[in-house]
Amino acid sequence: MTPLQVFLFFILFSSFSKADPLQDFCVADLNFPQGLAGYPCKSLSNVTVDDFVFTGFRNPGNTSNMNMFSITPAFVAQWPAVNGLGISVVYAEMAPGGRVPVHTHPGGTELIVVIEGTIIAGFISSSNKAYTKKLEAYEAMIFPQGLLHFQVNSGSVKAKLLVSFSSPNPGVQIISTALFGNDLSSEILEEVSSIDVAEVKKLKAMFGGTN
Amino acid sequence: MTPLQVFLFFILFSSFSKADPLQDFCVADLNFPQGLAGYPCKSLSNVTVDDFVFTGFRNPGNTSNMNMFSITPAFVAQWPAVNGLGISVVYAEMAPGGRVPVHTHPGGTELIVVIEGTIIAGFISSSNKAYTKKLEAYEAMIFPQGLLHFQVNSGSVKAKLLVSFSSPNPGVQIISTALFGNDLSSEILEEVSSIDVAEVKKLKAMFGGTN
Amino acid sequence: MTPLQVFLFFILFSSFSKADPLQDFCVADLNFPQGLAGYPCKSLSNVTVDDFVFTGFRNPGNTSNMNMFSITPAFVAQWPAVNGLGISVVYAEMAPGGRVPVHTHPGGTELIVVIEGTIIAGFISSSNKAYTKKLEAYEAMIFPQGLLHFQVNSGSVKAKLLVSFSSPNPGVQIISTALFGNDLSSEILEEVSSIDVAEVKKLKAMFGGTN
Amino acid sequence: MTPLQVFLFFILFSSFSKADPLQDFCVADLNFPQGLAGYPCKSLSNVTVDDFVFTGFRNPGNTSNMNMFSITPAFVAQWPAVNGLGISVVYAEMAPGGRVPVHTHPGGTELIVVIEGTIIAGFISSSNKAYTKKLEAYEAMIFPQGLLHFQVNSGSVKAKLLVSFSSPNPGVQIISTALFGNDLSSEILEEVSSIDVAEVKKLKAMFGGTN
Amino acid sequence: MTPLQVFLFFILFSSFSKADPLQDFCVADLNFPQGLAGYPCKSLSNVTVDDFVFTGFRNPGNTSNMNMFSITPAFVAQWPAVNGLGISVVYAEMAPGGRVPVHTHPGGTELIVVIEGTIIAGFISSSNKAYTKKLEAYEAMIFPQGLLHFQVNSGSVKAKLLVSFSSPNPGVQIISTALFGNDLSSEILEEVSSIDVAEVKKLKAMFGGTN
Amino acid sequence: MTPLQVFLFFILFSSFSKADPLQDFCVADLNFPQGLAGYPCKSLSNVTVDDFVFTGFRNPGNTSNMNMFSITPAFVAQWPAVNGLGISVVYAEMAPGGRVPVHTHPGGTELIVVIEGTIIAGFISSSNKAYTKKLEAYEAMIFPQGLLHFQVNSGSVKAKLLVSFSSPNPGVQIISTALFGNDLSSEILEEVSSIDVAEVKKLKAMFGGTN
Repeated sequence: MTPLQVFLFFILFSSFSKADPLQDFCVADLNFPQGLAGYPCKSLSNVTVDDFVFTGFRNPGNTSNMNMFSITPAFVAQWPAVNGLGISVVYAEMAPGGRVPVHTHPGGTELIVVIEGTIIAGFISSSNKAYTKKLEAYEAMIFPQGLLHFQVNSGSVKAKLLVSFSSPNPGVQIISTALFGNDLSSEILEEVSSIDVAEVKKLKAMFGGTN
Repeated sequence: MTPLQVFLFFILFSSFSKADPLQDFCVADLNFPQGLAGYPCKSLSNVTVDDFVFTGFRNPGNTSNMNMFSITPAFVAQWPAVNGLGISVVYAEMAPGGRVPVHTHPGGTELIVVIEGTIIAGFISSSNKAYTKKLEAYEAMIFPQGLLHFQVNSGSVKAKLLVSFSSPNPGVQIISTALFGNDLSSEILEEVSSIDVAEVKKLKAMFGGTN
Repeated sequence: MTPLQVFLFFILFSSFSKADPLQDFCVADLNFPQGLAGYPCKSLSNVTVDDFVFTGFRNPGNTSNMNMFSITPAFVAQWPAVNGLGISVVYAEMAPGGRVPVHTHPGGTELIVVIEGTIIAGFISSSNKAYTKKLEAYEAMIFPQGLLHFQVNSGSVKAKLLVSFSSPNPGVQIISTALFGNDLSSEILEEVSSIDVAEVKKLKAMFGGTN
Repeated sequence: MTPLQVFLFFILFSSFSKADPLQDFCVADLNFPQGLAGYPCKSLSNVTVDDFVFTGFRNPGNTSNMNMFSITPAFVAQWPAVNGLGISVVYAEMAPGGRVPVHTHPGGTELIVVIEGTIIAGFISSSNKAYTKKLEAYEAMIFPQGLLHFQVNSGSVKAKLLVSFSSPNPGVQIISTALFGNDLSSEILEEVSSIDVAEVKKLKAMFGGTN
Repeated sequence: MTPLQVFLFFILFSSFSKADPLQDFCVADLNFPQGLAGYPCKSLSNVTVDDFVFTGFRNPGNTSNMNMFSITPAFVAQWPAVNGLGISVVYAEMAPGGRVPVHTHPGGTELIVVIEGTIIAGFISSSNKAYTKKLEAYEAMIFPQGLLHFQVNSGSVKAKLLVSFSSPNPGVQIISTALFGNDLSSEILEEVSSIDVAEVKKLKAMFGGTN
Repeated sequence: MTPLQVFLFFILFSSFSKADPLQDFCVADLNFPQGLAGYPCKSLSNVTVDDFVFTGFRNPGNTSNMNMFSITPAFVAQWPAVNGLGISVVYAEMAPGGRVPVHTHPGGTELIVVIEGTIIAGFISSSNKAYTKKLEAYEAMIFPQGLLHFQVNSGSVKAKLLVSFSSPNPGVQIISTALFGNDLSSEILEEVSSIDVAEVKKLKAMFGGTN
């Protein structure tokens, strides 16, 4: 919104009043602009029990894609009730051979519990040490905030995971997509990644990058 | 530790040295005294991938008890890797008819995902409004920090839940146990709870309280 | 505010401008919707010294009620200047025999100073241990965040207390009112509280609950 | 503690053990070195209700001093139970004509309630605006974190105040003492304060400074 | 904004929509009212790389003023991209003999790096101890949050400094200006600062104060 | 430190005593084990002004290495005074053609100011959008917490940068080194990065990885 912009739109705060009692929670009202750590609160009079329930995991996405995995997030954008509560959750499935590529969450720690199947999971520390482990059903692993990590379905059946985060909006940056799915020039990418320019161009083609 | 106490015990810091690099995580060393928000860090040279993996959910407790539920926590005391990472996790089972009694977590928000079975779950707000819902498998519900909440197995099969918290050590206060399982006098309890003294005495007998 | 809602109300930001200097404080403007941790700031040009002064304790409520106590809060709703400053204050009076029933503050620690009279105060820890003490005038006690606690006037004169909180909006949940002052079914309440259904029904009648 | 220092003292951790349950509070053990935000916790087995009670306000200091006021703090050093709980409290008395000189609290907001007497209190904002007010008994005022503020007894009787802080250890820096009670050279002081060097030397004599 | 105020201005949220993805940053939209810890976020679709670049240090102010220094701040008001990121930066120049008068930052720690020249810098602790040092080019010094500190150009060439802060909006309170540049009465000022009333009046004249 | 370890080492706390006043800062004592957010404090009696001054930037490392850059960090390990103050600083030089490879800081935001030379700097958002810019001397750029970013010396003279962080210990993870400088198997790396296994093996050779 630039200073020159004419202010014409009207906001309906009809559901707010000074009499609104103070809240124990702050269900996000996604109609408002996002603030530093989340959204303003939906008026208490409009909040019902259904705000606190998330049913999206009952219909997860399919795994017929390049990485053979599906992710169903319940971050604040999908589940406004987590706004400001320091937690969120994701349900993931990986077909045999599927993987969650190397990625980071800039804003939070990830904690997975395997519900079905067998996976290999790992993270890499700032000391460049890899911590990897094969996990069976009902085993859990934690990936500390901001570090590179990945999961691979190493078994012969579909793997199912419940994934918690220490933030309602942890963010995600998949390394290959982040590097090769935009318009950064291949020459700069080669320079700052040490990956050969021919490989860079192949990866750009794969991830939709240009230049 | 009183000022008069003779200092006799010796601490072995053999695993620490000034050369220890800065850590991306802080696996708790439970041998040290607890600090404000957790424990000092285990020396990095002693940390292995097994610190980041929790296998305790593979052998949950049984549900043959008064409330017909079992709780297997992975808080910092059971899983030192969650120390300082703002998250922890619990696995719970409830036999048909079982329940998790009304309780609060003074230090964090709770987020449940039903894995199997059908439950009724609810919380009560500061405005004394009850938010309750029947949840099927793969549905999730959130209980904002510090508020009274409960779960009941309303189905005919064992219910299984994965429960995340926005703290490595959320604490728990089960209301009936907290009120009636100690030596608070029955007269004061009647006065501050409005529960009839005869009922108070019955509950004290049930929960092991005295006076 | 649903997406379908017609935007009709108009907001006057006439008192805001880009030239507004950055503020050392954030007196709440209660006309705006509440955010994650409080309210947006009143424009600096409208802030006067009277915003920082609270005079409500000069006329406390009377103590002619079921619990024989009066509470005069200076939380953010009553004193917008505490917004964002991590503190608030309450003045309380208890007639002889009066009490503040068992309650928790989901969002903060409570610290009381007795100004006049004699009270018995206590809290209960997660280990179900009761910490209780008789307090005289000019003695102080602290009740750590989120734990059950109570006060009883054990003397023969009116007790007066100043009560500070580590939050501008600590919330409060009085256990008996929270459990028995709503529409939770008596059967579920019996199940999750272990209190006999007849007693539950008696308490529901007392606290205005239904079902 | 330098690397060359010979390690001779012994610490008795006899009161700690891995079996110590997780705590709802962290009563400071002042025998340990201070950490970033406070002290390590006293072992739970040594904590009693008396840790949570502060009786020091019953015997406040006298007001026969240069500023005719007395301050009885209950910060973490005097009341270890406030450690980590985000709050502390002070009792103050000012004789008629007494004053609390201009000062700041680097680590917290101050909230006063006048119990007896009449004072003039004020703070100065970053915009150099003074917010001052005469306060009667049972009126409250808040001084936002880090800003210059002061109190003066403007009445004819002793004034009594209860003062809360949004930190267990807010710190205090009395401007005149901080500037003129040390060995900063008078020439530098004149330069950085714009106060005439003769006045600087007079103030140094008053506050015990040298150079 | 009082309840009686007529709502006439209109806000254009045309740049916001529910489809806005969650952001990794929160470039301040200074058109919105300030919140507790900063501003709401500019819509992601309006954010460009230029938001993340600050060019104001290329044209610093001149040093022809009473204190012979110039300050070019890149706080949130000048550089909206720092909003919510816990950091900001300032460029300062001091002519020979110039100084930054004694001041505090209520909201953050200051860290300086000398780029050119020689300065004397110092801060004063709560124990009234002065920590001062002569600094050459490429030496750094840190001034912990909220404490009184100052810098003086003690060399014969212009000194240049880069100054970082642990907050996007640390605030600043220059002691002499804060005390003597407003309408606080000279008598109260003498009382609360111990500075002679004649000197107070001289300083009021210098800093534009009245009364 | 395992429970079975014999406690033999002795700690000298000779420099600590209960009389130690509360501190305004917490200069790290690196002899103690690291805690959740930093180190315990050095005893105040051992703190001098030199603790608050860092001189390491006067002798930066040379740029004769693979990436033609040198980094001189003043994180808590090098400058214990930044402990707990939410800030740190680094001095960097890049020879012409030098670069800081793509990396993240898991624990903080980075803010650079170019002192000499011309660079191209950029970061990539969670939406896979690249924000890149050519920066001249005395221009600044900010890289929000946890996101991939890089710098390249695009000019013909040595570039000099001052780099601030919003944490005393932001951590750093250089992507190529993190992925290819350890013992993760080339097959898993290919799978989770989409980089061809031949290129993976070439990179492993370059960065010292095995398997």
